Amino acid sequence: MKTSFTVVKGSVTMARGFRAAGMAAGIKSSGRKDLALIVSDAPATVAATFTTNQVKSAPVRLDMQYMVASGGVARAIVANSGNANACTGKIGRIHARAMAVAVARRIKCPEEQVLVCSTGRIGVNLPIVKIEAGIKKLLKTVSRGGAHEAAQAIMTSDTRPKEVAVRFKLGSRAVHIGGIAKGSGMIHPKMATMLAFLTTDAVITRAHLQRALSAAVKQSFNRISVDGDTSTNDTVLLLANGAAGGKPLGGQALARFQVALNFVCLELAKKMVLDGEGVTKFVTVTVHGAMNERDAEAAARSVVNSVLVKTSWCGGDPNWGRIMDAIGYSRAKVREDLVDIAYNGVFAARRGVATKVSLQKLRRSVKQPTFTLDIHLHLGHGRCTMYSCDLTEKYVELNKGE
Amino acid sequence: MKTSFTVVKGSVTMARGFRAAGMAAGIKSSGRKDLALIVSDAPATVAATFTTNQVKSAPVRLDMQYMVASGGVARAIVANSGNANACTGKIGRIHARAMAVAVARRIKCPEEQVLVCSTGRIGVNLPIVKIEAGIKKLLKTVSRGGAHEAAQAIMTSDTRPKEVAVRFKLGSRAVHIGGIAKGSGMIHPKMATMLAFLTTDAVITRAHLQRALSAAVKQSFNRISVDGDTSTNDTVLLLANGAAGGKPLGGQALARFQVALNFVCLELAKKMVLDGEGVTKFVTVTVHGAMNERDAEAAARSVVNSVLVKTSWCGGDPNWGRIMDAIGYSRAKVREDLVDIAYNGVFAARRGVATKVSLQKLRRSVKQPTFTLDIHLHLGHGRCTMYSCDLTEKYVELNKGE
Repeated sequence: MKTSFTVVKGSVTMARGFRAAGMAAGIKSSGRKDLALIVSDAPATVAATFTTNQVKSAPVRLDMQYMVASGGVARAIVANSGNANACTGKIGRIHARAMAVAVARRIKCPEEQVLVCSTGRIGVNLPIVKIEAGIKKLLKTVSRGGAHEAAQAIMTSDTRPKEVAVRFKLGSRAVHIGGIAKGSGMIHPKMATMLAFLTTDAVITRAHLQRALSAAVKQSFNRISVDGDTSTNDTVLLLANGAAGGKPLGGQALARFQVALNFVCLELAKKMVLDGEGVTKFVTVTVHGAMNERDAEAAARSVVNSVLVKTSWCGGDPNWGRIMDAIGYSRAKVREDLVDIAYNGVFAARRGVATKVSLQKLRRSVKQPTFTLDIHLHLGHGRCTMYSCDLTEKYVELNKGE
Repeated sequence: MKTSFTVVKGSVTMARGFRAAGMAAGIKSSGRKDLALIVSDAPATVAATFTTNQVKSAPVRLDMQYMVASGGVARAIVANSGNANACTGKIGRIHARAMAVAVARRIKCPEEQVLVCSTGRIGVNLPIVKIEAGIKKLLKTVSRGGAHEAAQAIMTSDTRPKEVAVRFKLGSRAVHIGGIAKGSGMIHPKMATMLAFLTTDAVITRAHLQRALSAAVKQSFNRISVDGDTSTNDTVLLLANGAAGGKPLGGQALARFQVALNFVCLELAKKMVLDGEGVTKFVTVTVHGAMNERDAEAAARSVVNSVLVKTSWCGGDPNWGRIMDAIGYSRAKVREDLVDIAYNGVFAARRGVATKVSLQKLRRSVKQPTFTLDIHLHLGHGRCTMYSCDLTEKYVELNKGE
């Protein structure tokens, strides 16, 4: 199944019938790109997942309403960076809606078919006049080639745009899935300040599309952690316009779609971690042999959210004691005399105590920019992999104020 | 009630009948003091609270057994820094017991009347020969004046010893409570890498002593957070030798003892936060009007453990949006359009949106070394105060490896 698709150089406009554009509309004081637009030529079926935070931005609340009102059909996504439009009260709701209306009026669709996303600082009102002017310009420039600018325009403290695309064949028909994403700060397993916009030309029912997206998000965007904070704006949108033709995906074809979608989501998620604020290490943490899946996830989350573990990675210190500590205070059942811990396959601890492997040898793993950490609890069959990074002085510097 | 005791210059030997000593036994490679001993001339009633981590150090497990075996009687506490004796397996258990036995043999008491504590790096075996030699020396030097050395000898990355003592009168009798503590890294609400040793000459039953200690710990050591990690070694011990004379405390006298004990614990806890690794800001966070106490605590913990909130404090940035975000993803019920947030009494947000107070004015509060943060949820009567600090580049530097 793993090779049942091909990775291609492309982005959110890889699937036929999608166009995009990005520009600097003047929201960011830096003058960088801050407004993106993705348009589907035909009405597309849409699936979405939103932040689990109780404090939700105005666009997140609006999109949730729109998803209901439209019956899961969308024509466009308009997104800005530099301002989260969160904790902005009534005026924030008016602004979010104005963004949708500005697009809908010009592409002639109901407003609820335009989804809105914002990312950036919380609690500041949007410069809506600049945004409306920007939208007008973007609508004139949307093209298949504009995806890269759109990927740039949703960046906040990201240092590079994040784009992935794949192609696979169903009989004689080529199906594409492409996407862009932004991450960087506030990145946490349960939907972080992250936006991801995905498109596909597959023909697929709304129910299957939502199920496929939820499954893909669970094993990708919900399995990464930079700093343990869950934002108010997280959104993943997947638009399927059916341009590939054929009958709706089912059975084996649907399974292949899922595999390809999982790949796209996981690649984008990994790019987020790699581009996390101040990150110098990419760490794949797997908990094996937990009592159950829930315990495996709880133990893995505890490790990837431990400030002490993450700072030890920063220094290239294979401090497995901090890992024992982190799993010990997690909700997962742990018997310390059963725990094995390995960095890049080299066991630092077995049955809860240090192995004879030299500190020097262990350090070699943790000093690499990418390594694995495997934790075996030997209590059952629960397993969970998460993708994380180190916590550096640079992270603090980047986040300590304006 | 608040002024029903006097703060006096003193320490863990303020109560009559207690002696202490500290020395450099060679556990720390730096050559600093690393072994402490506190001896009660008479058998003392003892109360204790231990880490909630499932991974527990050898001395924590031993002390829990000893507390049962001795029926809650103790003659001495022996503690080392520089090595946690955690995740050290069978050899760790042998070492912890050897420390107790070395003391017990010389002061002629059952081994279970000697409580053992260790703090420092996890997963490394203790240099037990050096420690046994050290104990022999310490037993010759214990004195009322030795408390300060004991306070120094339990320090790890602490920059200063932490000592508090109070006196209050019950009729004509003077009663004392004194204590020493260490904190610094891995400091988290639910018992962190913290040790606190408290003594009193009050006459008090074991049940009352334990109840008083548990209540005091709940509102002090369990209400602080430096980095959100809960250690394997946390221990608070309170010894009461009855040297003040009189009948066992009850009624109003017991209430006054509780107030004084609360004060001692809270002072030591605050000292830990102030001396947290790399800390430049001390922040008192209070959540008001939560649905219930549990919600208030959950919201407060979420704020004091948010890496993003703590880094904003570091930079003196009154970023109330990050606070909204942190309470939003806590388990506490939050309605964002009801939330008020104030720094040093100045409201940054009301009903979930920014007030008209200038950023400059808010910055003045957050730039101070000590300030308050009050969060009003307006949902009920739950209230919780926690004591926290900023997260700085220095913290990362201190923790990123050897």
